[in-house]
Amino acid sequence: MKIYGDSISGNCLKPKWVADFLGRSYDWIETDIMAGESRTPAFLAMNPAGQVPLAVLDDGRPLAQSNAIILHLAEGSPLIPADAYDRAKMYEWLFWEQYSHEPYVAVARFQVRYLGKPVRELEPRIVERGKAALQRLEDGLAASPFLVGGAVTLADVSLVAYTRWAGEGGFDLADYPRVRAWIGRVEEALNIKD
Amino acid sequence: MKIYGDSISGNCLKPKWVADFLGRSYDWIETDIMAGESRTPAFLAMNPAGQVPLAVLDDGRPLAQSNAIILHLAEGSPLIPADAYDRAKMYEWLFWEQYSHEPYVAVARFQVRYLGKPVRELEPRIVERGKAALQRLEDGLAASPFLVGGAVTLADVSLVAYTRWAGEGGFDLADYPRVRAWIGRVEEALNIKD
Repeated sequence: MKIYGDSISGNCLKPKWVADFLGRSYDWIETDIMAGESRTPAFLAMNPAGQVPLAVLDDGRPLAQSNAIILHLAEGSPLIPADAYDRAKMYEWLFWEQYSHEPYVAVARFQVRYLGKPVRELEPRIVERGKAALQRLEDGLAASPFLVGGAVTLADVSLVAYTRWAGEGGFDLADYPRVRAWIGRVEEALNIKD
Repeated sequence: MKIYGDSISGNCLKPKWVADFLGRSYDWIETDIMAGESRTPAFLAMNPAGQVPLAVLDDGRPLAQSNAIILHLAEGSPLIPADAYDRAKMYEWLFWEQYSHEPYVAVARFQVRYLGKPVRELEPRIVERGKAALQRLEDGLAASPFLVGGAVTLADVSLVAYTRWAGEGGFDLADYPRVRAWIGRVEEALNIKD
């Protein structure tokens, strides 16, 4: 398997972490999105959406969308709960991440760190919704050490990707103590070092 | 099972269609989002995100996020491909729908039809990205009658929900002939009448 990804993208690190955790071998193809490398004709032929991460399976078939890739890689592993309701709650977090978390927490970080926008000039809507997403995580961790029960799942993989970098977008994680502790637990469980 | 939903929301119709298709019984609780019924204390106690649709299982446990609900309802049914790669491609479409289609195609329709905004006053970004999403569907249907192979799957359920209403947001489906034909096929396969 090849994984085309940009190391500055939390979405791209998700499949890397899962493959590492499960001991799956892969070639990482660093793909510089700021230099347009996900928009070349060769890349668009593999993924018409022009987005990383992109997994290319050993038989050459492509698979896009970070959360779809990790669902595929992790099938049959402990990263997907065996209980049907727990599995459904994991799906709930995965879709919530893409709709209500990433567009604010990741976008703020991208604009501040990579486009050089001062935090005070971020759109108020992005800041408000980013804070609401972090609070939702804080509340979601009130009763359990991980997002779905007692062990790390893909919900944690997906949500930790940009939450651990929220400070780079001007969010103060000191306001979310359960989230901070959870980040440490997830990093340890997945052996995330960088 | 109870499904809390607003009939004006394509996201809410997804679990209704799947439950109907699979012959699963449920009580539909009409929940008027424009009147704030998804933001009452009673509703927020069930779903802190304050969003519909919300499924409440027979044992009282809640499940949110339209695509998570349909994944849960359809487990073990033909709406989820048995082949691992096809299943992964279905996931890819589900996440793409929430990130790259719904925020433009559904939001344009909501602003025009329910907030009364003239089409010409829509944000250019919403119009451009909505058109790009419709073109991506058009291209995705070049080789197969449904989004993942030869039979209807949850990918079609999810994507058809707002695509069939795209005209209400000012998009002209005449520009996307394969999409138009596919809408008819999906409506027929799922027995969607309204």
